[in-house]
Amino acid sequence: MFVLGIDPGLSVTGYGLVESGHPPRAIRAGVIRTDPDLETPKRLLELHDGLAGLFEETKPDAVAMETLFTNRNLQTAMSVGRASGVVLLAAARAGVPVSEYVPTAVKSAVTGDGSAGKAQVQVMVARLLKLASPPSPADAADALAIALCHLRTAPIGASR
Amino acid sequence: MFVLGIDPGLSVTGYGLVESGHPPRAIRAGVIRTDPDLETPKRLLELHDGLAGLFEETKPDAVAMETLFTNRNLQTAMSVGRASGVVLLAAARAGVPVSEYVPTAVKSAVTGDGSAGKAQVQVMVARLLKLASPPSPADAADALAIALCHLRTAPIGASR
Repeated sequence: MFVLGIDPGLSVTGYGLVESGHPPRAIRAGVIRTDPDLETPKRLLELHDGLAGLFEETKPDAVAMETLFTNRNLQTAMSVGRASGVVLLAAARAGVPVSEYVPTAVKSAVTGDGSAGKAQVQVMVARLLKLASPPSPADAADALAIALCHLRTAPIGASR
Repeated sequence: MFVLGIDPGLSVTGYGLVESGHPPRAIRAGVIRTDPDLETPKRLLELHDGLAGLFEETKPDAVAMETLFTNRNLQTAMSVGRASGVVLLAAARAGVPVSEYVPTAVKSAVTGDGSAGKAQVQVMVARLLKLASPPSPADAADALAIALCHLRTAPIGASR
């Protein structure tokens, strides 16, 4: 089973494809960046087309996406909400089911500690995937953690 | 000039096409509903395809969208954020520029009062567009108000 983890953002969206197994195997990881000089609609179009290409190339069996419910910064929340809407749309068009996980669930599944720091998550991702060093950039490592979270936890249910 | 006003939502997205003039003229108004029994990704796909058809049929010169920055209900904010992301994506794909307006700007442009109630907005929309009665459903009336807001105010700038 191939799980594509996605950490959505308007500027940078991390992705990481993991194959289930003992140990699970990292197949591919990276980020989709959008042009900061473009207006939001065109950036969302860049993100959508990047995702569509990624789904086409990697043909995942499942998408696992991190969902942020935060009110710390409404502008950021709106921007992440829009990017996540585009991720869900692209997944629906590709016919791939999506499961959503909150950050504490991802951290807990990978490190055993829902309040783990970024560095701790990256070290555990490298250890679980038998990588020589923590994957970079950080958004790609986060996406691999989200894919691992999906493989290590029973999905709470499909995205609603 | 034809302006398509859009009031985005995952369940119901209102739209209203207004032609500039003295008086401005309502060409078409209605709502796109998505199936509540479907998962969010498929609902966003329904919304996207409905919007794509609407852009194709109405060929607007500009899209005016209401943008909500609220922290009253994070679940609702996330759901509106996702729907608005899909609206922006569909507009970018259709090559139509988008301007965004907050609710108080829409109310103020249409009634002169940024804290006007829904009924007051609907009455003024009917009066400005020389309609015999307030348009329904409410989401379609709101979308006409957003289009009127765009025609009556200098756009603050394109959507960023």
